[in-house]
Amino acid sequence: MIEQQIKQAIRDIPDFPKPGIVFKDITPILKDAGLCGSITDEFVAKLQGLQIDVVAGIESRGFLFGLTLANKLGVPFVPVRKAGKLPHAVTQKVYELEYGSAAIELHTDAFEPGSHVLIHDDLLATGGTVSAASELILEMGGKVAGFTFVVGLGFLNGRERIKPLSDTIIVLAEY
Amino acid sequence: MIEQQIKQAIRDIPDFPKPGIVFKDITPILKDAGLCGSITDEFVAKLQGLQIDVVAGIESRGFLFGLTLANKLGVPFVPVRKAGKLPHAVTQKVYELEYGSAAIELHTDAFEPGSHVLIHDDLLATGGTVSAASELILEMGGKVAGFTFVVGLGFLNGRERIKPLSDTIIVLAEY
Repeated sequence: MIEQQIKQAIRDIPDFPKPGIVFKDITPILKDAGLCGSITDEFVAKLQGLQIDVVAGIESRGFLFGLTLANKLGVPFVPVRKAGKLPHAVTQKVYELEYGSAAIELHTDAFEPGSHVLIHDDLLATGGTVSAASELILEMGGKVAGFTFVVGLGFLNGRERIKPLSDTIIVLAEY
Repeated sequence: MIEQQIKQAIRDIPDFPKPGIVFKDITPILKDAGLCGSITDEFVAKLQGLQIDVVAGIESRGFLFGLTLANKLGVPFVPVRKAGKLPHAVTQKVYELEYGSAAIELHTDAFEPGSHVLIHDDLLATGGTVSAASELILEMGGKVAGFTFVVGLGFLNGRERIKPLSDTIIVLAEY
């Protein structure tokens, strides 16, 4: 089962990025080409029947399976980047973090209005960044088709936070 | 021909990230799932016969085709990241930029000593970052199997800079 394979690959790193946090290191997954292929295939299988016009991947780790998924679905991939990184005209969203704030951007021509945009990131924690990405997509006239994550940290309640945005929340390995 | 397709997709952005620089925006390539597949296939075809044990992709845009290429070759992908991003034990390389310096890191267990590591980034400019990545890989006991780039800016002489590191330099679309 893919959830078991993912959990066996993931490495717990205590006290990263700060004391008291146990970080889920996904880099061992990336070393297993077969598992990477299975992850992409599993996303595609679980998304069957859903209209998806574009996959938006969150910088940086959401670029990884974001692109493999978009390619497999045969739809465009668009990068959601930190402020100042995208070279063309952008729409920006500022959002609150635990301490301070951050900003993400999409190219204004990332998708046509009315497009069904699937949001991908490697890990669902509090859901802050993907919520901000959803609001950005809605402001740009898109629809949130759903969310895909390789890993989810259930105890941070990200799923509850993003549920109002879409019913489709796919998490392959939940903690 | 793939070079033509890539060049037709790429968008020139004048004065980004600073005045006088014409930035090659690859995001339109990512919108074309067929072209993305062809790029990956073309890398694989051009690498035929070469020993590659690992693909190392440079954060962030090198994560894109770095992973699709590693998956297609059936070998591990390892991320080369900016300082402080990789959670496990790392080896770091500080290198000079036009103004100031930067640092990149690899997990110490990214590959076994003696491994043939292919370095991937989306664009070859001066070659500063991939040179630093090569030195890091050599210091860690690896071998530089070669380099792959989607785009190359020939007038910045990156190819000359990295040639001493490996004979295998694959650039799909050269300017």
